[in-house]
Amino acid sequence: MSYDFSEMIDRRHTNSVKWDVKDNELPMWVADMDFRTAPAIVDAIKRKADTGIFGYEEVPDAYFKAVQHWYATEHNWTPQTDWMRFVTGVVPAISSAVRRISHVGDNVLVQAPVYNIFYNSIVNNGRHVLSNDLHFQDGTYVIDWDDLTAKLADPLTTMMILCNPHNPVGKVWQPAELSRLADLAAANHVTVFSDEIHGDITDAGHGYTPFASVSDTAANHSITAVSPSKTFNVAALHAATLIIPNENLRNSVDRGINSEELAEPNAFAIPGTIAAYTQGAEWVHELNATITANKQTLTTFIQQHLPKLQVIAGHATYLVWIDCQAITHDTQALCDVIRQETGLFITAGAVYGGDGHDFVRINVACPAERLQDGLDRLVQGIHAFQAK
Amino acid sequence: MSYDFSEMIDRRHTNSVKWDVKDNELPMWVADMDFRTAPAIVDAIKRKADTGIFGYEEVPDAYFKAVQHWYATEHNWTPQTDWMRFVTGVVPAISSAVRRISHVGDNVLVQAPVYNIFYNSIVNNGRHVLSNDLHFQDGTYVIDWDDLTAKLADPLTTMMILCNPHNPVGKVWQPAELSRLADLAAANHVTVFSDEIHGDITDAGHGYTPFASVSDTAANHSITAVSPSKTFNVAALHAATLIIPNENLRNSVDRGINSEELAEPNAFAIPGTIAAYTQGAEWVHELNATITANKQTLTTFIQQHLPKLQVIAGHATYLVWIDCQAITHDTQALCDVIRQETGLFITAGAVYGGDGHDFVRINVACPAERLQDGLDRLVQGIHAFQAK
Repeated sequence: MSYDFSEMIDRRHTNSVKWDVKDNELPMWVADMDFRTAPAIVDAIKRKADTGIFGYEEVPDAYFKAVQHWYATEHNWTPQTDWMRFVTGVVPAISSAVRRISHVGDNVLVQAPVYNIFYNSIVNNGRHVLSNDLHFQDGTYVIDWDDLTAKLADPLTTMMILCNPHNPVGKVWQPAELSRLADLAAANHVTVFSDEIHGDITDAGHGYTPFASVSDTAANHSITAVSPSKTFNVAALHAATLIIPNENLRNSVDRGINSEELAEPNAFAIPGTIAAYTQGAEWVHELNATITANKQTLTTFIQQHLPKLQVIAGHATYLVWIDCQAITHDTQALCDVIRQETGLFITAGAVYGGDGHDFVRINVACPAERLQDGLDRLVQGIHAFQAK
Repeated sequence: MSYDFSEMIDRRHTNSVKWDVKDNELPMWVADMDFRTAPAIVDAIKRKADTGIFGYEEVPDAYFKAVQHWYATEHNWTPQTDWMRFVTGVVPAISSAVRRISHVGDNVLVQAPVYNIFYNSIVNNGRHVLSNDLHFQDGTYVIDWDDLTAKLADPLTTMMILCNPHNPVGKVWQPAELSRLADLAAANHVTVFSDEIHGDITDAGHGYTPFASVSDTAANHSITAVSPSKTFNVAALHAATLIIPNENLRNSVDRGINSEELAEPNAFAIPGTIAAYTQGAEWVHELNATITANKQTLTTFIQQHLPKLQVIAGHATYLVWIDCQAITHDTQALCDVIRQETGLFITAGAVYGGDGHDFVRINVACPAERLQDGLDRLVQGIHAFQAK
C-alpha cells in the first residue's frame, strides 16, 4: 500500500457531524470515513488557498474533462462533457430535480429500504413516496418486477430515484437489470434520477454500471448524479456533477439548479475535484481493498461471535447491512441498547423504510483497529440486549 | 498601512467570473474585489486543509460568537447567538425566504434601482416585483414615503427586501428611516428581509445601522442576512448568517433553509468566517480607507475630465453610481461602446430597475493603478460614444 489507512485519527471536537458524540462513544453511523483524503486533494486546496482571492468562481472545462476521464478510466463510460453540470451536492440536486421534474401531489418512486434522505426530498416538496420495496430472499435483495411495472404505470408516478449502487443494502445493480428498468421507465414517461454517489466504492471485480451507460433509452430518460464526496471522504467539499444526456431534460434541470443557487462552486470544489479525478485512482483502489478487508473481518467476526446475525453480502459501499430478525424486529430498540451499554453508535434500519426495521447499518470505513473496537462493542451490546 | 492594497494581481485564467474577459479588457463590474483577502483567513483555510478530513461539518458555537463579536465591535449591535443560522449564501437565503414567507402571486417589495438578483429571487418563485422606486433629488436618493406606505398596505404585499446599505446607490440608511420603515412594515404584516452584505464597507464616520437594531418592532419583523463575502472578498467561501430575533419567524425560515440544503457549511466556511470576524478588523479598516481614497480619486477625475457625469456621493459599498443622463438615457448603449472601444467593462444601470437606465455602476475595489487605467478608458470610451 502506498497510502496509510491504519492511522487512528482523533476526530473528536473537530466540528464533525459523525463525531459529535460522547467521549466514550464510537460512531459507525453516517456515511463519512475516518480516513484522511487523498494527498493530491489537500495539495490542490492549499494551492488555491495560497492565491488568497476567493471571488466568484466559474467551472472550467478542465473540471468536466476530469469527470469524464474518471468515468472513462474507472467505469468504462465516457459521458460527453456538455452533458454535465456542476452542483453543490447530490442531495440538493435531487430536491431540485424533484421540484423541476415532478408536480406537487405526484408520486416519486423509490426502492425501500433506501437512503432515508430521498424521503425528505420527496415529502418536503409535497410529493408522495411510492416504494417498490426490494424483495429480500436467499440472503440478498432483488427487484419485484411486477410491482415495479405496476407502480411505474401509475399516471401519478413521474419520477424515480434509483440508488445505484444501492445504499443501504450494498447491491451492485447489473446491466440487464438497469436496462430493463430503463425500458419500463421510458415506456411510462418516468424520469429516472440515478444517485451514483457510492459507485466508486466496490470490491475488486465487482465494479458498478452507470445507469445512463446501459442503453440510449436509459441515457435519454435519466439524470445521473456523481460526486467525489463518498469516494474521497469530502462531503464538505460541496462538489457533485449531474450528467444528463438529453438536451431538453438537461436544460430544464439546469434552470432549476441555477435559480436555486446550486450551480455555483465554492473556491475549493473545482480544484479539489480535479485533483481527485485525475490523481486519486490509486488512492481509491487501495481504499477499496481496505474496505473489502474490513467487510470480511466483520463478516467472519459476526459468523463466529454473533451467529444469529446475517451479514448481507453486498459488493458496494462501505456500509454493511445486517439482518437482525433472529434477535428482534425492532432494531431501533436494539441500537438504543447497544449505544447506551457500549457507546457504539450504528444506524437502525427503520429510517430506510421497507424491511429496514429488521436490520442495522454499520459503517466500516475506519482503521482495522477501530473496527475491532466496534465489533467488540457490538457483541457486548447485543448480549446486553438479549439479557434484557 | 499594515496590508498591501496596491499589488497588481493577475486574475486572468483563474476561473474568476469577473475576469472571464478578453485579454485587452478591464473588468470593473461584478462586486468582487481585486485584493487578496485578509491573511488570517488564508491561514485558517490552510490549517483546515492540513487536517485532510472533510466530512460532514457542524456549525460550532464559536462561529456564532464570532459573528456576534464582529457586530458588537464593528457595528455597536450585539445580536444573540441563538437568533443566528448559518447559510451558504445571502442570495440563496433570500430565495428560500421568499418561498417560505410569501405565497405564489404575492408582491415582494423592493426599492429600485436595486441589486438585480433580488428580481430573480422574486420572479423565479412566481411572486411579483413591486417597487417603491427611490426618488433621485438633489444628487441623492430618498425614500418616497407616501408610495411606500401605499405599497406596504396592499394586502398582496407580504415581504420586503431591503438593501441596507443600498446597492447600487451606495446609500447608508439612517436609524430614523429604518425605524419608520419597520413601523410601517409591521403595521401591514410585511416581513422585512434586510440584506446587509455591504454593511462593513463604509467611509470612516459613516457606519451603517443594522435594521434589527433600531427597535423591537424592527427586530421582531425582520430577517437579517450578513456575510464576510463582500467585506473580505470571499464570495466563494459560501458563508453567510441569518439573524432572526423572532422565534416563530426563525423556526419557519430554518425549516426552509434546511429542506433546501442551504444550512450545511463546506469545510472552509466556518474556519474562514471565524478568522475573518475575530482577526480581520484592521484589514477591513485599511480596506475601507483604500476604497474611500479610490472613490475620491474617481470623483475628482470625473469632475475634471467628464463634467457632464455626476458621481452620486454614497458612503457605502465599493460600487460607485454615476449619473450619465446629460449624455444618454440608455447607458447600456454607452457601456457597449465603452467596452468595445476601450475594453472597460462596467455595469449599465438598467438591470437595477427604476431610473437605472440613466446610470452606470463602477467597481472601484482595485489597486489605484488599475483604477487609473479604468478612468482613462472611461474618458476615452465616453468620448467615443459622444463622437458617434
